[in-house]
Amino acid sequence: MDVMPSVFDPPSGTRDFLAAEFEKREWAFGVLRSVFASYGFEPLQTPAFERIDVLLGKYGDEADKLVFKILRRGEHEASGEADLALRYDLTVPLARVAAAYGGQLPTPYKRYAIGSVWRADRPGKGRFREFVQCDLDTLGSKSPLADAEVLCAQHDAMVALGLTDFAVNVNSRHVLSGLLEVFAVPPELGPGTLTSLDKLDKLRPAEVIDELTERGLAADAASELVGAMTADDATDRIRTALKPSDVGAAGLEEVDRLLALVSGQVQAGRIAFVPRMVRGLSYYTGPIWELTAAGVPGSIGGGGRYDHLIEQLGGPDVPATGTSLGIERVLMLLPDSVAGQRGRTDVAVPVLGDDLAEQSFALAATARSVGLRASVYLGSSGKLGKQLRWASDQGARWCLIYGHAERDQGVVTVRDMVSGEQCQVPAWELAGYLATAATGTADA
Amino acid sequence: MDVMPSVFDPPSGTRDFLAAEFEKREWAFGVLRSVFASYGFEPLQTPAFERIDVLLGKYGDEADKLVFKILRRGEHEASGEADLALRYDLTVPLARVAAAYGGQLPTPYKRYAIGSVWRADRPGKGRFREFVQCDLDTLGSKSPLADAEVLCAQHDAMVALGLTDFAVNVNSRHVLSGLLEVFAVPPELGPGTLTSLDKLDKLRPAEVIDELTERGLAADAASELVGAMTADDATDRIRTALKPSDVGAAGLEEVDRLLALVSGQVQAGRIAFVPRMVRGLSYYTGPIWELTAAGVPGSIGGGGRYDHLIEQLGGPDVPATGTSLGIERVLMLLPDSVAGQRGRTDVAVPVLGDDLAEQSFALAATARSVGLRASVYLGSSGKLGKQLRWASDQGARWCLIYGHAERDQGVVTVRDMVSGEQCQVPAWELAGYLATAATGTADA
Repeated sequence: MDVMPSVFDPPSGTRDFLAAEFEKREWAFGVLRSVFASYGFEPLQTPAFERIDVLLGKYGDEADKLVFKILRRGEHEASGEADLALRYDLTVPLARVAAAYGGQLPTPYKRYAIGSVWRADRPGKGRFREFVQCDLDTLGSKSPLADAEVLCAQHDAMVALGLTDFAVNVNSRHVLSGLLEVFAVPPELGPGTLTSLDKLDKLRPAEVIDELTERGLAADAASELVGAMTADDATDRIRTALKPSDVGAAGLEEVDRLLALVSGQVQAGRIAFVPRMVRGLSYYTGPIWELTAAGVPGSIGGGGRYDHLIEQLGGPDVPATGTSLGIERVLMLLPDSVAGQRGRTDVAVPVLGDDLAEQSFALAATARSVGLRASVYLGSSGKLGKQLRWASDQGARWCLIYGHAERDQGVVTVRDMVSGEQCQVPAWELAGYLATAATGTADA
Repeated sequence: MDVMPSVFDPPSGTRDFLAAEFEKREWAFGVLRSVFASYGFEPLQTPAFERIDVLLGKYGDEADKLVFKILRRGEHEASGEADLALRYDLTVPLARVAAAYGGQLPTPYKRYAIGSVWRADRPGKGRFREFVQCDLDTLGSKSPLADAEVLCAQHDAMVALGLTDFAVNVNSRHVLSGLLEVFAVPPELGPGTLTSLDKLDKLRPAEVIDELTERGLAADAASELVGAMTADDATDRIRTALKPSDVGAAGLEEVDRLLALVSGQVQAGRIAFVPRMVRGLSYYTGPIWELTAAGVPGSIGGGGRYDHLIEQLGGPDVPATGTSLGIERVLMLLPDSVAGQRGRTDVAVPVLGDDLAEQSFALAATARSVGLRASVYLGSSGKLGKQLRWASDQGARWCLIYGHAERDQGVVTVRDMVSGEQCQVPAWELAGYLATAATGTADA
């Protein structure tokens, strides 16, 4: 049952991240940063907004409509004009940075970026207006090793997140050009034909054939093309068909080189040449790839070589390759609680009298000094029973009880909140006692 | 000499964070998160923008002018109206969250938030339009322990960042009310008088006396008040003066309780009762404090109890206390490179032939498997000399050379980029060799 939206909800398409979700996300981002850094990629963070002329007109009118524009300020506010806009992706800022800091950046410039982007899309299940993108790009290298490297790093990042049930589909824009050539698709129908072929993972072959003929492709060419692409031995048939085409043969070589380069890192059963995979984005110029996961429609990531895009986006003329992880989708594949996630409090410290508050503070500090999370009771009740319920609500593992009796004896009563057992520990032994107890729990 | 702004610069008042700066910032944020979590505070992250009615009208007209407003979209864009706005601080979103998730949140709700806020301020030295705020707040506790806890956590965070040359000034709104009472300041002049007293850290006493008389305060009252506040024994004089005032005496008790509670955590020389400290913000209702650092004008953080603000901001009626660290200022106090910061690459791997690229990839993976950062050469030169220069530019500690000679002998040549020494390591021993070498370097 849907809950009525409240005036206290975050804006449509955005989310508040309370503790558990925040920790899960931070853990995942930390894993990604660590893997990317291990490949020698360095971080980049750009502002949330850019000047509007930097952002608009880069991906076409449809994309421009999704840009959140920021109204001019002061006396200019009444003009209704915008001079800034929230970033739509992380690639346009990368192009600007490459232009701004060219000489200061290493060559090639290998950078990762994990940051929010904003799109005024219609919000829906798993679709947000504020979401995090996770990009890995190398500017300034034409080498196929650069393609292989970003793909390996992305693959390793998935594995480091604990995900194994995913596949990597590889293709090349040159394979696709070769296909259009050998199946004699008229040049003006090329882009449309590729768009239709891209739907073969969602639509039945007959539906795609219909779409192709509607686009103006001859019926026999359409059914021959779709037949070859969807046959059980599609890969072999396409390999054979492409041979007469120079561009097609070059594309095959590109694919095979990429497969060979990543073979040490990506297990064989997980990666395959998939000739019908198109990656809608028209700016790719070489090998392309896509990650898919069981149970997730569409892709969970992908990329490829895009040698002219950085210049088109206003940056310098550099070859480039990159890959993007659909991190919001990937996060949904992860369990709710992840490795290393910790409760709010390990140690709860009641306060059993105004005159004992300083000692309670000191006990919490002792627990912190051995790496535990510790909270002091901040409520108004002086009763131990009520404070023990608070300790239990906090999910505390131990409770450090210090009343007047303990003060007189120079001890602390340590209560195990799981077993309910209590023991008295001399105040000066508490740090050691907690450190040992914490190690025991971690081992258990 | 100023550099001309370029079309590739980020928007005025915002910054691009390249690798070194990003790592320093992330390190600091990580330290803060860890200290706050050790006190049982939990993280909260809210969207970059809020509905405009949530944000406007909360801090007065001057603040509203600084809000970045987002234009409506689609057919409504032409209206020139805004429906969303970038968050101005982290407290208004906290109030909304407290209202939205009240029952789901722990009681008290102890949360920290480290996130960007945006203000259309005139950018200047150390003043930005996009900057990070770092807030620590406890909602739902009237206990003085809650005040002491946020202050201790903020203090420990500073220490954990490696900062020691800072002071904590403590006062109370009740002390200030008592002062107005015992120095017979007419009620209508109260707020203005406090605003002027707040300038005693910047202006000379005579200037403040002038300002007070201009506000309408009697000349003798003004000079008596300023005289008491700036005397060498100001604290004692104020303590004595406040005794006849109920509210003043209560304020002194509040201050002394706070000083006693934090005394185990904050060394005595670092913290003091400073009666002339006002903390401009009118919403404080109890103890207040401010952190100052040598060489930094103004404060680098501060906070206090603000029992009615959450309700005024649209949240529930809960007592609250909190503190904010001026993290952008604090970051400027930190050295450029910080503990744990690492170079881009530990290990550089040349590629000495197309037929050896896969092995170079595998060597890099071996280095990564023992926790090192490794980069494979992505340029076009096949020459070792050029690739060694690249390795050196990357700041690599070791270079793994694998040519045809090494292949034939089943070894890898490991070059120490500092000493220039080389040795040959059997391929199967490489992981162990690098792990040992890395430990040796870390120890050295």
